Amino acid sequence: MYQLVLIRHGESTWNLENRFTGWTDVDLTPTGIAQARESGRLLKEAGFAFDLAYTSVLKRAIRTLWLALDEMDCTWLPVKKDWRLNERHYGALQGLNKADMARQYGDEQVLVWRRSYDTPPPALDPADPRSERADRRYAGLADGQVPLTECLKDTVARVLPCWNDEIAPSIRAGRRVVIAAHGNSIRALVKYLDGIGDAEIVGLNIPNGIPLVYELDADLRPTGHRYLGDAEAAARAAAAVAGQGKA
Amino acid sequence: MYQLVLIRHGESTWNLENRFTGWTDVDLTPTGIAQARESGRLLKEAGFAFDLAYTSVLKRAIRTLWLALDEMDCTWLPVKKDWRLNERHYGALQGLNKADMARQYGDEQVLVWRRSYDTPPPALDPADPRSERADRRYAGLADGQVPLTECLKDTVARVLPCWNDEIAPSIRAGRRVVIAAHGNSIRALVKYLDGIGDAEIVGLNIPNGIPLVYELDADLRPTGHRYLGDAEAAARAAAAVAGQGKA
Repeated sequence: MYQLVLIRHGESTWNLENRFTGWTDVDLTPTGIAQARESGRLLKEAGFAFDLAYTSVLKRAIRTLWLALDEMDCTWLPVKKDWRLNERHYGALQGLNKADMARQYGDEQVLVWRRSYDTPPPALDPADPRSERADRRYAGLADGQVPLTECLKDTVARVLPCWNDEIAPSIRAGRRVVIAAHGNSIRALVKYLDGIGDAEIVGLNIPNGIPLVYELDADLRPTGHRYLGDAEAAARAAAAVAGQGKA
Repeated sequence: MYQLVLIRHGESTWNLENRFTGWTDVDLTPTGIAQARESGRLLKEAGFAFDLAYTSVLKRAIRTLWLALDEMDCTWLPVKKDWRLNERHYGALQGLNKADMARQYGDEQVLVWRRSYDTPPPALDPADPRSERADRRYAGLADGQVPLTECLKDTVARVLPCWNDEIAPSIRAGRRVVIAAHGNSIRALVKYLDGIGDAEIVGLNIPNGIPLVYELDADLRPTGHRYLGDAEAAARAAAAVAGQGKA
């Protein structure tokens, strides 16, 4: 009935440096740029066409979308940028090295921060220069709406209104949608769409830069999903993501 | 009271090849890419910040905007793409070489096609493979709204509703606006803003990739305008545009 394509951004500089990123606005690496172009090439090769794109307000997702659209020769596509599709906010961990933190606090604690559904990492101080509260791209948000930390549950709570109020109505109106976003904002969507439990969703890893295609029925319930391109490469990429938080 | 920044796209492949372009969706040259980046650098250096960007649905303007926003580190800026900001449609001349046409029809005839306010070039046949009527980016337009040719008067007639309904209300609402567009859609805006006559506007040339800054009063009437950066370079660039249609 409907199709929806999700793309996690290509490798970022802090993916490469194994640092907690969250809302920090880091760019793609050359590998990430190649992954983004490849995602567009795969979509074009498979005959996909879109009417509307969504992305976050973070450049690693925006650039991934731009490069994919460029490969598909549809840079003219309308694009809506929504902060609610941002990566999970990683609180006071933003910028810190995942392996360093594992050595300091133990693998188990880092796994809780990375993969607990409802335990957020330590919060950023609002006065911390890493806080995004003074960033003018969030100036339109209500007081306190810019998070200081988030667990996945918090991310789900802000992604779903974006789905319900923005994206789902567009799909129901017949617009073919692609979303370029982040590991945890895509996880939030996948959890909702596939009805995945709180304990299970944290074990699901989304590879960088590989289009994830959902087939949806008239009620936007999934009837199936698949990664485009090399399924084994997708599985290896997902396993690599899962292994990042070890000392 | 208000500021408005207009940027004509950087040099395109058909600017370089001296061909009539119109709605044909050609890309930037390496020079055009450098011009686009430079326009962003100049805006950043001069301390400009924007809340909203407009561009056409043609990639030479979109890419110019993307590159400028990238230089300003604000790829997150909301961007509205509107076909009404497209270049003037050049009818059956699209793709043809300006100097060839001057040799064939005479400098004077080409000057009429290029610079008459109300005489359009010969129309494209709707069945011509160059016609944009089957292009899905225009699928939402009313029957016959995709032009087969345009004189500048026609371009003005579709740019102004975009100004009045979209851009002017955004500026009045306090949003700082940048527009990346084309020689003739920018001419249409400049004609309206500065109240330039039909005979005079055709002699005004807009250089590629140099930000044109308008200061506007509370009623959006210009109190002044200037090019950013090297004014002599801007004048030379404008003169180069004016000289393109000679045999």
